Amino acid sequence: MTVDLAAVEARVRASFERQELMTTLGARLVRVSRGEVEIEAPFDARLTQQHGYIHAGVITALVDSACGYSALSVAPPDAEVLTIEYKVNFLAPAQGERFLARGRVVRAGKRITVCSGDVVAITGGEEKSVAVMLATITTT
Amino acid sequence: MTVDLAAVEARVRASFERQELMTTLGARLVRVSRGEVEIEAPFDARLTQQHGYIHAGVITALVDSACGYSALSVAPPDAEVLTIEYKVNFLAPAQGERFLARGRVVRAGKRITVCSGDVVAITGGEEKSVAVMLATITTT
Amino acid sequence: MTVDLAAVEARVRASFERQELMTTLGARLVRVSRGEVEIEAPFDARLTQQHGYIHAGVITALVDSACGYSALSVAPPDAEVLTIEYKVNFLAPAQGERFLARGRVVRAGKRITVCSGDVVAITGGEEKSVAVMLATITTT
Amino acid sequence: MTVDLAAVEARVRASFERQELMTTLGARLVRVSRGEVEIEAPFDARLTQQHGYIHAGVITALVDSACGYSALSVAPPDAEVLTIEYKVNFLAPAQGERFLARGRVVRAGKRITVCSGDVVAITGGEEKSVAVMLATITTT
Repeated sequence: MTVDLAAVEARVRASFERQELMTTLGARLVRVSRGEVEIEAPFDARLTQQHGYIHAGVITALVDSACGYSALSVAPPDAEVLTIEYKVNFLAPAQGERFLARGRVVRAGKRITVCSGDVVAITGGEEKSVAVMLATITTT
Repeated sequence: MTVDLAAVEARVRASFERQELMTTLGARLVRVSRGEVEIEAPFDARLTQQHGYIHAGVITALVDSACGYSALSVAPPDAEVLTIEYKVNFLAPAQGERFLARGRVVRAGKRITVCSGDVVAITGGEEKSVAVMLATITTT
Repeated sequence: MTVDLAAVEARVRASFERQELMTTLGARLVRVSRGEVEIEAPFDARLTQQHGYIHAGVITALVDSACGYSALSVAPPDAEVLTIEYKVNFLAPAQGERFLARGRVVRAGKRITVCSGDVVAITGGEEKSVAVMLATITTT
Repeated sequence: MTVDLAAVEARVRASFERQELMTTLGARLVRVSRGEVEIEAPFDARLTQQHGYIHAGVITALVDSACGYSALSVAPPDAEVLTIEYKVNFLAPAQGERFLARGRVVRAGKRITVCSGDVVAITGGEEKSVAVMLATITTT
């Protein structure tokens, strides 16, 4: 099978642009490849929890979208993806200049796709892991 | 032990007000009791995913804060709480006029508190379950 | 719709009896109702971890089966159920004379059913919560 | 710091031998390195679910022990580890001649260590992924 990577990226990008939350978070799609997607967002004080770190829910939103789009990147052209469930471990406070969320397909099925994801906080040239995700996505 | 409920609520409310994300989401603290906290937010198009429903990450943020504050409501007066991890199942699209997130303590420990949470979408007088959470909170 | 509870129980019981692990664990089906199933097993030193408590994996097996059968109890007569994923919080060491695992349906879907479960350790007349589960089951 | 790998392995092995469930499952410790542990068990009909595959709870027990021991392998010499919670996605039926569970440390903390694990089914020279785990372990 020939995979049209440009078509895959166009499809992911079109859906990403309809996610208004991504605009609200200042997020952008950094990289789309087959089975792997990266989304980045800058620090923003409007998105913080009580200690001034980025709220866990925002970190989760970024990596959920990265995982969902990694699933979409391997799905049939007319498919839709929907998150059934996820679980996230937080490894360190979400403190940094920007946050890079990466999602990748662990196992793609006809109806159920399992993805793993992680988020790193970037400050200058330094990266620090802040979260890891395991997600179950349904393809319809 | 006499529990000063007013002091508990004041502590939770002060922390909630420092969570700038809650303001960004239009969320407000609806109810604080010992071991149970409710947070509500209205539908807002800026918070949607590609199908126009509220993004899973936003639903997660609301119920994570509700769970965290339920843990704080049973913690010693000078304690801080931090989410170690959570898992969320999504039961239906987050579609509605407003969203009520409820967190409650399942087991409070000296260092580790386990909470469960759920979110209902409310439209008129109708409630519909949209998510359930299980969360692990550390008290420091 | 008339639900034939005797038929539901017979179906669950027939499947339970094919789970050889349940025999190995000394487990028995205590109660089957529509959307709720209970399984019990006695303490057994062959099933312990390094401190002499029942191993987390055994507790998980009991409550996974209870959740799976609660899903089966609401599924069409010819359906099969399969666990896609679960998450478990352990609340206390699994110490006791016997262990009662309860599974119940949170939301039944055509393809995806979400269940919650818990396990209590019983010693004399005392019950102690040892674990809570959230599980995603697929119906085929 | 010099790490005495032989001492680490001896410590893990001594604890493993006290886990009577591992004997019941026919499991053996295959490899211990700093931050990574492997446990293997053969297929055994006494451990199956209703379709004749190994029960999810058994797969979970193997990978939980592998994760717990990977955490122990990086903990101070006199520390004990305890699983707080885990989540597991099942990728394929647990069908094979033997099952290799691998646990590795994602982030080691003073009190909380996060591990990831996976299980492969092996038949002849073929490996097939059957499960992935994310676990939170406490060190006391």
